[in-house]
Amino acid sequence: MDSEYAFTMTDHPSARLDDTIHQRVRLGILAVLAEADAADFGYLKQRLDLTDGNLSRHLQVLEDAGHVEIEKGFEGKRPKTWIHATRQGRKAFSEHLVALQQLIDMATQRRE
Amino acid sequence: MDSEYAFTMTDHPSARLDDTIHQRVRLGILAVLAEADAADFGYLKQRLDLTDGNLSRHLQVLEDAGHVEIEKGFEGKRPKTWIHATRQGRKAFSEHLVALQQLIDMATQRRE
Repeated sequence: MDSEYAFTMTDHPSARLDDTIHQRVRLGILAVLAEADAADFGYLKQRLDLTDGNLSRHLQVLEDAGHVEIEKGFEGKRPKTWIHATRQGRKAFSEHLVALQQLIDMATQRRE
Repeated sequence: MDSEYAFTMTDHPSARLDDTIHQRVRLGILAVLAEADAADFGYLKQRLDLTDGNLSRHLQVLEDAGHVEIEKGFEGKRPKTWIHATRQGRKAFSEHLVALQQLIDMATQRRE
């Protein structure tokens, strides 16, 4: 086969995993955001058992990629940071889960 | 809650994902190895659409972690490198897939 077609030579689902989303912490963030319309920083931090710095760093990567939006505001007098997945982020996450499900199904087929 | 228990504060499946296995290419390698008892280097490379260097690097990480064994040999006169998952590697991969399945189920529950 012609080498210029190398990038389409595999249909293995792992080739469709996007590192921006696949990274463990970011996959967790998008999974929590898929459960609710928005989550605040403190909830995400506790739910995923992360430090402030670790959560901030991965939120930044997701924001830079356009997958989440981060809004600073107040709840009463307390400052709160709200995070929600963008339409693009939800779509990309959803496609990622399809690829992961295919990978799981292929890998477990033989053993069942 | 006492901070010394922070590491058990979450039951979110993303907290059970092991970076050694979760990385996209390594997850693909272990998925292919779950389909067969062993695979040769060339097959893995083609199946996952990787370069020699990329595949070698990730196989090394998996070998260092005890998840795969790499054997160099011959098939007729042609040198071949065979890779198979160890018992430990299969167990860790299998547990990883359980966590991933839970994450998928949690994240898709709301939308179905």
